[in-house]
Amino acid sequence: MFGRPRRLALLAEGRFTPSDAKTAVSVLRYRPEEVAAVIDSTRAGRTAAECTGVGGTIPVVEDVAAAAVAGADSLLIGVAPQGGELPVAWRASVLEALARGWDVLSGLHVFLGDDPGFASAAARGGARLHDARRAPPGRPVAAGRAAAVAATVALTVGSDCNVGKMTAAVEIARALQARGARAAFVATGQTGMFIADRGVAVDAVPSDFVAGFTEVLVLEAARDADLVIVEGQGSVHHPAYSGVALGILHGACPAALVLCHQAGRTHLRLAAAPGVFAIPPLAELVEAQERAARWVRPAPVVGIALNTLGLGELEAHAACVAAERETGLPATDPVRFGAGPLAEALMAFRRDHAPAA
Amino acid sequence: MFGRPRRLALLAEGRFTPSDAKTAVSVLRYRPEEVAAVIDSTRAGRTAAECTGVGGTIPVVEDVAAAAVAGADSLLIGVAPQGGELPVAWRASVLEALARGWDVLSGLHVFLGDDPGFASAAARGGARLHDARRAPPGRPVAAGRAAAVAATVALTVGSDCNVGKMTAAVEIARALQARGARAAFVATGQTGMFIADRGVAVDAVPSDFVAGFTEVLVLEAARDADLVIVEGQGSVHHPAYSGVALGILHGACPAALVLCHQAGRTHLRLAAAPGVFAIPPLAELVEAQERAARWVRPAPVVGIALNTLGLGELEAHAACVAAERETGLPATDPVRFGAGPLAEALMAFRRDHAPAA
Repeated sequence: MFGRPRRLALLAEGRFTPSDAKTAVSVLRYRPEEVAAVIDSTRAGRTAAECTGVGGTIPVVEDVAAAAVAGADSLLIGVAPQGGELPVAWRASVLEALARGWDVLSGLHVFLGDDPGFASAAARGGARLHDARRAPPGRPVAAGRAAAVAATVALTVGSDCNVGKMTAAVEIARALQARGARAAFVATGQTGMFIADRGVAVDAVPSDFVAGFTEVLVLEAARDADLVIVEGQGSVHHPAYSGVALGILHGACPAALVLCHQAGRTHLRLAAAPGVFAIPPLAELVEAQERAARWVRPAPVVGIALNTLGLGELEAHAACVAAERETGLPATDPVRFGAGPLAEALMAFRRDHAPAA
Repeated sequence: MFGRPRRLALLAEGRFTPSDAKTAVSVLRYRPEEVAAVIDSTRAGRTAAECTGVGGTIPVVEDVAAAAVAGADSLLIGVAPQGGELPVAWRASVLEALARGWDVLSGLHVFLGDDPGFASAAARGGARLHDARRAPPGRPVAAGRAAAVAATVALTVGSDCNVGKMTAAVEIARALQARGARAAFVATGQTGMFIADRGVAVDAVPSDFVAGFTEVLVLEAARDADLVIVEGQGSVHHPAYSGVALGILHGACPAALVLCHQAGRTHLRLAAAPGVFAIPPLAELVEAQERAARWVRPAPVVGIALNTLGLGELEAHAACVAAERETGLPATDPVRFGAGPLAEALMAFRRDHAPAA
């Protein structure tokens, strides 16, 4: 990851739960071979799987020193809080990792490399600070070019932040590959970048270039793939992040959409305004997403990715059935039940809409 | 402007026309007392008004030396090209201005202050480089707070870039003030900032914070105003800039919208894809804007600001009448015919929707 194989310690102090430690959980799910330990002193002694259901027997440990004993050689910040600051209490852990010569990988909005204390500690320890969210060079202005690729481009869109758009995109790409399709995952956020080892955190680029960077990513991915699955961000209904959602939608110019939602979530999870913004019904979300797509390029929603975290097996199944009934579209929890129905919906869509030979 | 009264030279080499030199024309329209000369060697010898209809007898001159003779003491970059680069040929003019000790004010995406050549020239000349588009500190996350202010917030939204959203907002605020209302203009782009001497160029902030910065600006302006008129950017139909448009819409949480359009423009002016993206009919634009607003806070379009640049007087009047007929809303060219109808529509809206005392 980020230049070389690593043995990561995932820093998730006090927050190592499936809903709080999104980045850590995703790295454990998709790159467990690179994880040596998770740091959360409040859960030390358990395994990763006991805390989050992923990561098997990877140990949860007390601190950086214990992670070193477990074989770690790099530190990855395992949370992505709203606003993107480093929790103050984590500063000492970062400094200790740097003192040990560990590279530190971060997806925060605040750049660790711009912190003089961290920069000098890194220099002393011979370590590198990787800020995944730092905007790459360039000022690409989108122009709908992604609509013209031969590949079928699909975008995961959401009812809110943190409902599973990245996970759905990864799972759909893998399910397509398992079916023999040439499929690529396009990461537009820091967690996706840790998994894919490429991409751009478009929520951190100057807003004029969100669509442009997305367009560049899609054009690159479409060179070697027949199906390009783009990770969406935020939601067009979100008072803080709707702009990022729409910029990605119009930069990617998808031919099809997959709507992602967490079953049972009724309101946006907005720290400053909990319970204020109701999430519309699924059918209304489908209509809104299709309307927003049409402003640049029409794209139907072809399936629903339902995150059923916290539900029992029967409830989760019932939620998928209810979503199918409400929307008339295939619905699945791609983690729990597999992304097969969504992959197949996209393959069918491609067959029906392939450009004439 | 930007710290002290100035005698500006507006750099618009080869582009000093109403459509190309948006920034220069706006500064001439709203702060002519601070302009000593316009630099455009291809039009030297004429007056500003002869080239653009604004700026009266302010001279258009050959170069920086001639602007100095005309009394200039600062240089302002008078264009805002897509992509935001400095035209290569203008480099020498910037260096000469700095050598003379002139401050240089720029609204480009590329920051002059980050250019080592410019920075050292500024240091040698004792001059300052003001990059209006540099993001201010902070990472504000919007949460719909602007919906709760006592002031009536209105936003100018558009059919495309460069149709007159900033000008409409300034003219409406002035027309409201002329009618005795406590009205404030909120600048969200570099040209508006040059006019208002405050604001944030939200198209240049990390995209996660477009709505947040807009929210902060509205909350500040609402402290001393009963009507807050926010400058919109881009268009929700624009493949490159729709995200910025939606971020401002949901950050400002306006109670009412004013739709801005250039009469006769049929397609988006996108340098890389001219003639590709058709602009929908006005009635459809109204519907789309209201729909996008409703995702966070419902807001009706209460009037149309029509930019009739290039039309004759009779045609311009006919275009406004046609727009009124198509939408059932008051329509005016705020520059040519005055913003009175829009100001009055907003005052009526405020009367009808004022919070109960």
